[in-house]
Amino acid sequence: MKGAQSRMSESSESMEDKQSAGKLWGGRFAGSTDALVERLNNSLAFDSRMWREDIRGSIAHATMLGEQSIIPAEDAERIVAGLRQIERELDSGAIRLDPAAEDVHSAVEMLLREKVGPAAGRLHTARSRNDQVATDTRLYLLGATDAIREQIRAFQATLVELAEREIETALPGYTHLQHAQPVLLAHHLLAYFWMLDRDRGRLADCRARMNRLPLGAGALAGTSFPIRRERVAELLGFAGVIENSLDAVSDRDFAVEFLAAAALVMVHLSRMAEEIILWNSPEFGFVELDDSVTTGSSIMPQKKNPDVAELARGKAGRVFGDLLALLTVLKGLPLAYNKDMQEDKEPLFDAVDTLLVVLPAFHKTIATAQFNRARMAASLYRDFSTATDLADYLVRTGMAFREAHHIVGRIVRDCIDRGIGIEDLTREELAGYSPAFGSDESGEAMRVATVEASIAARKARGGTAREAVEAQMALARAALAKTAS
Amino acid sequence: MKGAQSRMSESSESMEDKQSAGKLWGGRFAGSTDALVERLNNSLAFDSRMWREDIRGSIAHATMLGEQSIIPAEDAERIVAGLRQIERELDSGAIRLDPAAEDVHSAVEMLLREKVGPAAGRLHTARSRNDQVATDTRLYLLGATDAIREQIRAFQATLVELAEREIETALPGYTHLQHAQPVLLAHHLLAYFWMLDRDRGRLADCRARMNRLPLGAGALAGTSFPIRRERVAELLGFAGVIENSLDAVSDRDFAVEFLAAAALVMVHLSRMAEEIILWNSPEFGFVELDDSVTTGSSIMPQKKNPDVAELARGKAGRVFGDLLALLTVLKGLPLAYNKDMQEDKEPLFDAVDTLLVVLPAFHKTIATAQFNRARMAASLYRDFSTATDLADYLVRTGMAFREAHHIVGRIVRDCIDRGIGIEDLTREELAGYSPAFGSDESGEAMRVATVEASIAARKARGGTAREAVEAQMALARAALAKTAS
Amino acid sequence: MKGAQSRMSESSESMEDKQSAGKLWGGRFAGSTDALVERLNNSLAFDSRMWREDIRGSIAHATMLGEQSIIPAEDAERIVAGLRQIERELDSGAIRLDPAAEDVHSAVEMLLREKVGPAAGRLHTARSRNDQVATDTRLYLLGATDAIREQIRAFQATLVELAEREIETALPGYTHLQHAQPVLLAHHLLAYFWMLDRDRGRLADCRARMNRLPLGAGALAGTSFPIRRERVAELLGFAGVIENSLDAVSDRDFAVEFLAAAALVMVHLSRMAEEIILWNSPEFGFVELDDSVTTGSSIMPQKKNPDVAELARGKAGRVFGDLLALLTVLKGLPLAYNKDMQEDKEPLFDAVDTLLVVLPAFHKTIATAQFNRARMAASLYRDFSTATDLADYLVRTGMAFREAHHIVGRIVRDCIDRGIGIEDLTREELAGYSPAFGSDESGEAMRVATVEASIAARKARGGTAREAVEAQMALARAALAKTAS
Amino acid sequence: MKGAQSRMSESSESMEDKQSAGKLWGGRFAGSTDALVERLNNSLAFDSRMWREDIRGSIAHATMLGEQSIIPAEDAERIVAGLRQIERELDSGAIRLDPAAEDVHSAVEMLLREKVGPAAGRLHTARSRNDQVATDTRLYLLGATDAIREQIRAFQATLVELAEREIETALPGYTHLQHAQPVLLAHHLLAYFWMLDRDRGRLADCRARMNRLPLGAGALAGTSFPIRRERVAELLGFAGVIENSLDAVSDRDFAVEFLAAAALVMVHLSRMAEEIILWNSPEFGFVELDDSVTTGSSIMPQKKNPDVAELARGKAGRVFGDLLALLTVLKGLPLAYNKDMQEDKEPLFDAVDTLLVVLPAFHKTIATAQFNRARMAASLYRDFSTATDLADYLVRTGMAFREAHHIVGRIVRDCIDRGIGIEDLTREELAGYSPAFGSDESGEAMRVATVEASIAARKARGGTAREAVEAQMALARAALAKTAS
Repeated sequence: MKGAQSRMSESSESMEDKQSAGKLWGGRFAGSTDALVERLNNSLAFDSRMWREDIRGSIAHATMLGEQSIIPAEDAERIVAGLRQIERELDSGAIRLDPAAEDVHSAVEMLLREKVGPAAGRLHTARSRNDQVATDTRLYLLGATDAIREQIRAFQATLVELAEREIETALPGYTHLQHAQPVLLAHHLLAYFWMLDRDRGRLADCRARMNRLPLGAGALAGTSFPIRRERVAELLGFAGVIENSLDAVSDRDFAVEFLAAAALVMVHLSRMAEEIILWNSPEFGFVELDDSVTTGSSIMPQKKNPDVAELARGKAGRVFGDLLALLTVLKGLPLAYNKDMQEDKEPLFDAVDTLLVVLPAFHKTIATAQFNRARMAASLYRDFSTATDLADYLVRTGMAFREAHHIVGRIVRDCIDRGIGIEDLTREELAGYSPAFGSDESGEAMRVATVEASIAARKARGGTAREAVEAQMALARAALAKTAS
Repeated sequence: MKGAQSRMSESSESMEDKQSAGKLWGGRFAGSTDALVERLNNSLAFDSRMWREDIRGSIAHATMLGEQSIIPAEDAERIVAGLRQIERELDSGAIRLDPAAEDVHSAVEMLLREKVGPAAGRLHTARSRNDQVATDTRLYLLGATDAIREQIRAFQATLVELAEREIETALPGYTHLQHAQPVLLAHHLLAYFWMLDRDRGRLADCRARMNRLPLGAGALAGTSFPIRRERVAELLGFAGVIENSLDAVSDRDFAVEFLAAAALVMVHLSRMAEEIILWNSPEFGFVELDDSVTTGSSIMPQKKNPDVAELARGKAGRVFGDLLALLTVLKGLPLAYNKDMQEDKEPLFDAVDTLLVVLPAFHKTIATAQFNRARMAASLYRDFSTATDLADYLVRTGMAFREAHHIVGRIVRDCIDRGIGIEDLTREELAGYSPAFGSDESGEAMRVATVEASIAARKARGGTAREAVEAQMALARAALAKTAS
Repeated sequence: MKGAQSRMSESSESMEDKQSAGKLWGGRFAGSTDALVERLNNSLAFDSRMWREDIRGSIAHATMLGEQSIIPAEDAERIVAGLRQIERELDSGAIRLDPAAEDVHSAVEMLLREKVGPAAGRLHTARSRNDQVATDTRLYLLGATDAIREQIRAFQATLVELAEREIETALPGYTHLQHAQPVLLAHHLLAYFWMLDRDRGRLADCRARMNRLPLGAGALAGTSFPIRRERVAELLGFAGVIENSLDAVSDRDFAVEFLAAAALVMVHLSRMAEEIILWNSPEFGFVELDDSVTTGSSIMPQKKNPDVAELARGKAGRVFGDLLALLTVLKGLPLAYNKDMQEDKEPLFDAVDTLLVVLPAFHKTIATAQFNRARMAASLYRDFSTATDLADYLVRTGMAFREAHHIVGRIVRDCIDRGIGIEDLTREELAGYSPAFGSDESGEAMRVATVEASIAARKARGGTAREAVEAQMALARAALAKTAS
Repeated sequence: MKGAQSRMSESSESMEDKQSAGKLWGGRFAGSTDALVERLNNSLAFDSRMWREDIRGSIAHATMLGEQSIIPAEDAERIVAGLRQIERELDSGAIRLDPAAEDVHSAVEMLLREKVGPAAGRLHTARSRNDQVATDTRLYLLGATDAIREQIRAFQATLVELAEREIETALPGYTHLQHAQPVLLAHHLLAYFWMLDRDRGRLADCRARMNRLPLGAGALAGTSFPIRRERVAELLGFAGVIENSLDAVSDRDFAVEFLAAAALVMVHLSRMAEEIILWNSPEFGFVELDDSVTTGSSIMPQKKNPDVAELARGKAGRVFGDLLALLTVLKGLPLAYNKDMQEDKEPLFDAVDTLLVVLPAFHKTIATAQFNRARMAASLYRDFSTATDLADYLVRTGMAFREAHHIVGRIVRDCIDRGIGIEDLTREELAGYSPAFGSDESGEAMRVATVEASIAARKARGGTAREAVEAQMALARAALAKTAS
């Protein structure tokens, strides 16, 4: 088999085969690990971002081990003090994780050995990297989830403020990107408020399921030492423990659920972004973006591009990809831990990073946008968006809606042929379409078909009339207050 | 442009261009719809399954319209009676939806026109298909979600029963598909109990967000009629109304969230399925499946294939695909309704159908499986799965875990070289590895390294010891009881 | 275990447990298949669409078996004649496949037994359903691929015709949905020509890999009969045989590759669809769609919605989902055939159906669209889209491009502040920005900055100048001709 | 709106707002870019890996500009010399890209300005970052594709060598993970050879479509300078130019097609990996992995985990995610360039990196694996995998296959009940099942049902008989040779 082996990539051959520095498990092995395999295997490059959580988890674990006399109390104290010192020194940059370590757990334990000597060897009593990494990841994601929820809340607050400011601004409401019915810009902006509110709710539900401690599950079966998992949970702030050790080390539901919630956040941002991009086009001209959130072109001197909105839209793709990547990893994996699960972290971190940069940047784009009220108003002129109101008028005279719809349909067709709008019709012309219009001596039909009247009429709950929107705004403020604690 | 048009597919030309039968919106149009376009556009083929929900929604809407005097009370009564009759006749097969109709809403309205005449034309007052379809879909999915939760609960109950039965069965616990530590089969089965329990929790959370009424949002802006949405919500059993009309018609979060929860259910089933397939292989031989859930081969007379498990695993793919499909549809869609959203239903229905056939079929596979206790026990012989217990023994003598791990690693290597297991070592041989073993006069080290002792030692919460598993089982029963209401 | 079983869904209990009608493999089994499991397992509901391919494959197989004397020549003849008769009768509707059959293969074999009696039992000699279904699926997909390629070619031909018609129409070219530089509509339309051309190329490459015969692989290992696979390939029109029997029954690459190519077709259609939707908005007004490809609203009488374009865009989601579904199914499957692979067909059929309805319907939408040249021209007024030309002018006077870009950037900013366009600047005003403009006595700078001059200047290969576009059109026609055979 | 803005994340406020260092487009802008937006927007962190390609492209562009006298010849020479120097100094580490630059293009141009002064400002004449980045990305991916194809080829060569070595090793062939029919290990390994061969074919087809030059498309419309794109293509080694400038800057098909091909490579590796993991389990015991490609456990001293195989399997998920991410990004994007497209690079780089580490590492795992021939042989004992041969025997006596299948099915059932295998049956017992067996005086039936005879009988093309496998191996070697050029 020399042939087959000698064909191996030279990158593998030429890499220096570092002797198992940073490995915690050498005893059973005769040969050393291939350099290329180490490169594939090691996770420090990405899991190093969880060093704080790793140290927190180890402090809680060591504290409990000492309290339970599983390890000598003085060793526990030495370990805790050492970990605290490492945390400070990593924070200040005085020391760093050894890049040759296999993962963040090994890297921290190596530092600990330097600080406290042989006592460090007692830290891993009654635990495994399987329950340790699950704990670290949950701690990390609990924090990230809170940061994201806070970003969403801040964005929601801005939307309410903008809605207050734009409570008198009318623009066409669209379906199929065709003018449908006039709406208030405040109403339009609040639609996004509620999407984001559901996002926060989903993240809160996800957080509750995530908030259980895996540590104490050991490799997969629990441990033979008399640990107290509730105590560790308490020290780390978890609401409870995971009740099955196999489940504790092999569950990544919390990560998938988070990614699914993140994907929906991106769906919502991508929809708002699409509208900003449309509105920012010369043809719409509904919005002027701040210079601070746009960029120019290397070749076209006139360009001012809505990059943040485009990236908010485009980055939906990567978060969908993150979600699908993890689902695929988990599909069909037997119990309990499998190495495949190491692939959970990069999609997770990528989604967290994406949300934590896109949310504030796009929030800023919206917060600093100037809406062009005149262009919005002009767009409503002769646009037939009050045709439904004309039909509703006929219904109120007693006509069935289907018939009214048909009559107004013909009116619209004739107007288009004549190059005019509904607002240009005379009472006489209207009367020609239906006796119901003929008896409208006061010109009521034409009055209900104005933009102002159309909006004002939609005052049922959830509608676009000013009073309905103000009621909605009060609910929005209440939703923000309730969870601002 | 004659050239380009004449090149059009003949299928389009040759299809008879049925004049807009079943269309509710012809007034504005001069030309008729292309036959091919109708085929693309019509949704009856798949949305017809929501006819019950469509009728329920219309009954509630008409009732409220009558109560509010938006339409004459007698018309409202006639409509409600007509709809009830249609429901009965569709149920009995006496009538059917016209396949030429554009969608389920048009099809039901056409039947209503036949039953009650012109009054039918009043039903669509103060609503649009946009809020109507959103209402129908939510009603449908609320029911489907409940049915799925019930299937999951039944599966969970079986797992608890099986765990009771197998409380004395030991098998190797695996990580990396290598023997890790012995576990009880009861413990292993309960791991899936908790996965399914989270699934039910997710579906319940999803259901709560889904349980809001969109109707009354009209096309997108609300309506000019004095409707009472709370009344319609009450009649249909919704817990509340959606507070923004634009959001009401353009929100599909509930569908995405359901699909994400469904994808996780499939992840869990695919994992259990993978294990059943492995265990059913001749090499494992841990399980014998019932003839009723297996199939044979068209060519190989000896085959008995675990098809249900394979399909439970494989069908994860389609549900992931359903989830991704809807996320993609929604990405970057401007407000409010766009036709793209019609693409929400097929993935949703596919996922519901998949879960409602896979859950009971795979449940049956598990419920009727015979676990081969002897093969499981045999597999634990000389498998080194109690090596950790040997290391833990050393730790209890005062050694640091890292050192103990290293010593036992060497023991394992030597045993492999000699072709024996840990159980074959003498006390003298052990003593050669460490003085700590030398002072073990009573043979305690060898005792802790038996399968029975290894399992019994893991009695901390969540561990695999019998007492811990029995405590876990009690929690499982409580979880089932709490939600069995 | 009675408890667990009795908890099974009643749908399972209540379904009549049909005795293994249509099963070809009962010998080894004592118990009968559960009704619910049958429902899960059976594939006839979707694979019945391959009955033609199944019959074609069987005719070829039987012919070869007879030629090789593996079965008696008269039995082979009887089988072939029976299959031909079945094909005719299925075609005419005289008979139909038994819905109780397990799959299309069993259903056809059952019909054959009725036609020719016991000889039918010889047909399955030297083959398995594993190689049979792989053959059927390839035959089906080869045909579908050809139909799709033909639809794409027809669409491309229309694009060339439209480009010819619109060779003088200018519109803004966009980047970031901002006006970038003026382009010819012909040039814009031809961009889609080339995307579709790559799609055809991909499908052709995919087809070549697909065009190999799996039959003869048996269940997985080949067969003990002296078959001639080359002969079967020849009879069925395959270009060759698959050289490894395990690969033959477990390969679904061809389906994934097809789905990936289909996903790219949908990407291209979704992009063109997005533009049609934008252009059809009142704010753009660049296109008027034919009544035959639009629909109205159930509530708003004025609406004329671009449904076909919206569905062309939205249906990208389902095809992406189909692709992901199959990739997920295949991930991590051991050799050779596994039941999971039955999940290949529905995504495949869904993608084929989607393309075969979307392509002609959207093609018709484009072919019948009226482009509004006046609105396009108006949109170019004062839009700064020729700013690059002004910078290029400065470069030709010897200035470095970076400096020229900066100067024109300032000009644009000043124009915006003054509410004018580049076309409104005087030579004197220009001269104030750079001496290079000062020396431009003939007004050359202002001339190059007109829309007409800007377009005409881009005559390098692939550019938007009329002569470059006409050269491109010739290449497009050549590409169509080459493959029109 | 002060409120909304002041709520913005402090991370945004606290970051120093670096004045547009590294921006090439400031002229039109009054305000400066927000620091957070810069962080979102800048691509240097990931596109810096294309610096070699960026420099190569610029050298070719400048050379052509000089040859065409679009810029002074001496400036062109200075630019080319400067770029060559930059390449050398970046290579040696003497200089580095300024991390404050917006992207790799700006960073290189900044270095050039330092080297050659104002002449650097002429380099961007007649090009845009839109065509530049498309060119860089294609150059990069052409190289990466070649590297991947070479890795695949090397893996294939190993498979052929292993097949030669294992030409006498028999093991059970599986379907549904049940023993189906015996196969040669050589045959099994070659199945993967052909999968990988199709992968190389797909990458070659993809490469051909990728191998066209975008440069010269400018921002989107071409350029007003008399460039010669064919000359640049020639200098860079492209086979041709892209014929439409809009298409040139907005096409990312080549990246999607690459990712789809990469996803299939991962499907194949994940399947082989699954088998290695299974075979490496104690229950199978078919393979012993080299220490160099396995790792241990932090807690269980006996563990030796097949990490490389697990990661080869798990990393399929990320590549599927990469593919879906890019498809999602592109869906529904209007022409031409949009900022969303910047999201093409990270998925692409991730997939390239994944393949270039997984392929050699997993290749090494396979190349160094020791197959346990004795365990494979033992697994075939009494496993009924030759039942088909018994049925085939009956067919050769003139019985229809369906009847033969049924008879052997009963034999298998009886053997299972008796706890014996087919090999344990006597001629008399066989005769009890069918007269056809009764007349088999020489014991032929039992002879054909041995493992050796079963394999040897499958000698039709593509079968598992030694002679068929050797013929297949010759074809495999020819396939390798043909493309080794």
